[in-house]
Amino acid sequence: MKILFIGGGNIANIVYNELKDHIEKCWYYDVLQTNLPCERMNDFTIPNEADVVVECASVEAVKQYGVDILKSGKDFYIISSGAFSDEDFFDKFMIELKNSNSTVYVPSGAIGGLDIVYSIRNFIEKVELITRKPPKAFGLENVFQEQIIFTGNAREAITKFPQNTNVSVTLSLAVGDFNKVNVRIVADPDVDQNIHEINIYSSVGDYKIIHKNKPSPNPKTSYLAPLSLAAALKKRTEKFRIGG
Amino acid sequence: MKILFIGGGNIANIVYNELKDHIEKCWYYDVLQTNLPCERMNDFTIPNEADVVVECASVEAVKQYGVDILKSGKDFYIISSGAFSDEDFFDKFMIELKNSNSTVYVPSGAIGGLDIVYSIRNFIEKVELITRKPPKAFGLENVFQEQIIFTGNAREAITKFPQNTNVSVTLSLAVGDFNKVNVRIVADPDVDQNIHEINIYSSVGDYKIIHKNKPSPNPKTSYLAPLSLAAALKKRTEKFRIGG
Repeated sequence: MKILFIGGGNIANIVYNELKDHIEKCWYYDVLQTNLPCERMNDFTIPNEADVVVECASVEAVKQYGVDILKSGKDFYIISSGAFSDEDFFDKFMIELKNSNSTVYVPSGAIGGLDIVYSIRNFIEKVELITRKPPKAFGLENVFQEQIIFTGNAREAITKFPQNTNVSVTLSLAVGDFNKVNVRIVADPDVDQNIHEINIYSSVGDYKIIHKNKPSPNPKTSYLAPLSLAAALKKRTEKFRIGG
Repeated sequence: MKILFIGGGNIANIVYNELKDHIEKCWYYDVLQTNLPCERMNDFTIPNEADVVVECASVEAVKQYGVDILKSGKDFYIISSGAFSDEDFFDKFMIELKNSNSTVYVPSGAIGGLDIVYSIRNFIEKVELITRKPPKAFGLENVFQEQIIFTGNAREAITKFPQNTNVSVTLSLAVGDFNKVNVRIVADPDVDQNIHEINIYSSVGDYKIIHKNKPSPNPKTSYLAPLSLAAALKKRTEKFRIGG
């Protein structure tokens, strides 16, 4: 596989390590020189040879380069799904995608159970995403019982809690309706790590998924997020695919 | 999409209904004439025109026709993953797959969270699959506290509880190691429906997924299983794919 990474930091490094047996050639575009063992591009250009473009950078990078990537016709893997909370950008992107040869992949990121969500999306009544963090994560002290810091949809959550953006937007995209997903952010003195809980209510069943993610070398990113990106890329090479 | 269904019953009907806008032509092979609105084949042959073969029949059907399907080079979707608990068949199938143009898809079936499992498979310490049913489902009466009916791996579970086969095998395939998955079947007087609980312990995080599935028109099959098969097929047509 020949990969252009956008962003050469922590996430790209984890993806590279997971995939290295499958990588024939790779490049990265980043403002900084990093330790990613791929050729650095000084300007944003997409090598003709590349099979896929893999964004491991930021919401801004998706917005800035997304349409150009679709014009190249390369398959495009996106970790910063938060870009799609911007309706104008999302509409523009989807129109461009219609006329593109690209397929776009938004891996499940720091959460899971999207296999259930996507399968039953037409039967979903509502979904809750409850993120619990220790009170000190919000700069709070002397909190003795759980305290809801935010409740609303993914788009509303973004301005207040940008660090939660990708999780709530990816979940909302899987549901196919931002208004069916209630995002709640809770300061909880009973937890010592970040916990994402997803509750799905539907006419075909009810589901609960609890995630206790451990951080990757960059503590702002859980390990699961880059591993889900690596897994989505690895499936390209597999003839026996489990889980759709 | 042009689909050959193996099995024309409840599951094929649900898949057909979910996909009908995408189906150009379809056939089915079944010993019985069913109400599936596709052309019935009297003998098992794979139409040249077909894009995919979709098994909605039984473990036996996968074993009987699986290798022929791989020889045809058609993509192959399998709901009765239990066939792969037979190591001899699995080995034979994987050798044939190496030389085949087919890609094989085993959708998540009646469970979910396989996006997590597959992404972190190299970091998994152990996985538990706990299936709880009301005692009467096991012909038990006067059970006042939960009672473990079975504990072992997916292969051991099959001889005793064949109805649970596909769930435990699909999960074990996603983990990539049958010995890391402990299957427990519990008669629980506190539940009034079947509940599958998956606990994943790994060096990148711990995860719990609880499924309260509702049955499809055939009460032996949850609705989620055929919907996951339909979703996997539908992804073939999508240029914007959520969840990998």
